[in-house]
Amino acid sequence: MKGAVLYGPRDVRFEERESPKIIKPTDAIIRLSATCICGSDLEPYRGIVEPYRGNVKVAPPAPMGHEYCGIVEEVGSEVRNIKPGQFAVGSFVTSDNTCVICQHGYQSSCVQREFMSGAQASLLCVPLADGTLVATNDLPPKELIPSLLATSDVLGTGWFAADAAGVKAGRTVLVVGDGAVGLLGVLSAKQMGAERIVAMSRHSSRQKLAREFGATHIVAERGDEGVARIKELTNGLGADSVLECVGTQESMMQAIKSTRPGGYVSCVGIPHGVALDGEQLFFAHVHLHGGPATVRRYLPSLIKLVLEKKINPGKVFDLTLPLDQVAEGYRAMDERRAIKTLLRP
Amino acid sequence: MKGAVLYGPRDVRFEERESPKIIKPTDAIIRLSATCICGSDLEPYRGIVEPYRGNVKVAPPAPMGHEYCGIVEEVGSEVRNIKPGQFAVGSFVTSDNTCVICQHGYQSSCVQREFMSGAQASLLCVPLADGTLVATNDLPPKELIPSLLATSDVLGTGWFAADAAGVKAGRTVLVVGDGAVGLLGVLSAKQMGAERIVAMSRHSSRQKLAREFGATHIVAERGDEGVARIKELTNGLGADSVLECVGTQESMMQAIKSTRPGGYVSCVGIPHGVALDGEQLFFAHVHLHGGPATVRRYLPSLIKLVLEKKINPGKVFDLTLPLDQVAEGYRAMDERRAIKTLLRP
Repeated sequence: MKGAVLYGPRDVRFEERESPKIIKPTDAIIRLSATCICGSDLEPYRGIVEPYRGNVKVAPPAPMGHEYCGIVEEVGSEVRNIKPGQFAVGSFVTSDNTCVICQHGYQSSCVQREFMSGAQASLLCVPLADGTLVATNDLPPKELIPSLLATSDVLGTGWFAADAAGVKAGRTVLVVGDGAVGLLGVLSAKQMGAERIVAMSRHSSRQKLAREFGATHIVAERGDEGVARIKELTNGLGADSVLECVGTQESMMQAIKSTRPGGYVSCVGIPHGVALDGEQLFFAHVHLHGGPATVRRYLPSLIKLVLEKKINPGKVFDLTLPLDQVAEGYRAMDERRAIKTLLRP
Repeated sequence: MKGAVLYGPRDVRFEERESPKIIKPTDAIIRLSATCICGSDLEPYRGIVEPYRGNVKVAPPAPMGHEYCGIVEEVGSEVRNIKPGQFAVGSFVTSDNTCVICQHGYQSSCVQREFMSGAQASLLCVPLADGTLVATNDLPPKELIPSLLATSDVLGTGWFAADAAGVKAGRTVLVVGDGAVGLLGVLSAKQMGAERIVAMSRHSSRQKLAREFGATHIVAERGDEGVARIKELTNGLGADSVLECVGTQESMMQAIKSTRPGGYVSCVGIPHGVALDGEQLFFAHVHLHGGPATVRRYLPSLIKLVLEKKINPGKVFDLTLPLDQVAEGYRAMDERRAIKTLLRP
């Protein structure tokens, strides 16, 4: 089997890897229908953080990718709900879906959690298959594969961002960050009935997609100027719900300062070098919630929305490449020539 | 009129002050039935922060006190709901109770907010009387005055702590901090139906009151040892709801680390020198909410609970002094000889 392996900064190779095998009786093997490159994959690609394997950070070389969907090839002896031949999507983190944390809807902090890796390949072993994967009743039509793939992480994360920011019908929502997650945060807020959705973006292609997904306003200013624009739009009060989809000190402060007292801020971009001042946060009077998106909680309903063609999150893939051109996929996203790259094995 | 004035670190004097007058048509004058000393009054008393007057920090001398209840003496021409002769309690911050922020229940961040001061006196001017004060139908019996006074801040803040920490029936709740607010956080969690309430305290008199208010467990350990004890009590997962009622870096981290993923942390102690690491907060996966307590939102229901004798928050006052001994009241709290001092004008 061939797959993507990161060897060092900006050095992704498509090469022969050992084919995955069932090791634990709760494992399943999937033949990927599609996979893709995540914004968070760019961090080890750029050499900012080490790649991980399971829950452990490792030195390169490391197999890459954690977004996936495909046909179940084989299941372990204890797998009950997932059957060979089915089409299934899974979260970018595994979960047993039965522990107390999972029961509270926080599958991405499951007591048995493992971060997936190695999905940019033709085959993938998914641990805790019953708790991690969701299978569809029928094989989906080919044109829905990109949108189904999106539910595995990028849409699930955008949805978590909107949910954690308390988006409700009639509310004013602000999305900080115009990456694929932010754009799907716009789509999620729209689905949840938000009345006004402000997208912060200065790239015309992303502004266009944001509008298509439901943004009613675009703000190009950043930092304190951006905050001032949001205040202008909200009678000086701030937005009800703010989705922080970047993860820098500037974007976090922009998000917090743009929220009305009593409003909600979610953060779904892994924060690097961010320190929040306790007293400032206290007097901002906001709710703050974030972390690894609870994708598994939303998967059944998101898959349903896709199959019923109510949403088309696959539009964030503005570049599709055969898997063997994965290195070009990384380059295009690194250089911001592409929002998100879909890879076809 | 005489009242308490702070002249400098540990120098509170009871002295002649100008009697308050109606200045704006929305003001009311109250003759205090009782007032008290807040944990936050100890900060300017100790010289850690400057006292404030309205919303402005000022150099001493400064009139002290922001917890109050009493008989309405006079109202401005635009006051509609509050009448002379009524007994009324108000929040420690003023609110119009009509702006968008107030409508969302965040009266303590009202667009017209003013922090009260000067309540340790015989008379007090309350701005925005209609939106700040809640009057009772009848004059309450004398023995309920301490508990009614408590609703003005310390109980309201404990209640906000429990509410912001998402306390619900059947949940496991942890209270960090055994001051009067923490103790009333215990009482509030009990009222909200919490199944297990763990109070962190190493003072026997406070442990006793915590148990009386509903604590089911006492943990004396602090820091990482305290966290380990909470994990032991919760199958290694952490508590559902954690009330942070101190405001130091250590207590904040203790609170966050003691919460289960997906759980809730509230902070009601003004944080001094606290910096939260973004990545740590992200992977903790908790909800975080805090700020000036939304006392006005809860006042009607808290007053009702007191009048129906369902709660007795006045028990936190373990020292009662005539107002002219206010200096001794501060000393007793500063030296932790008293949990909270009630002052009788």
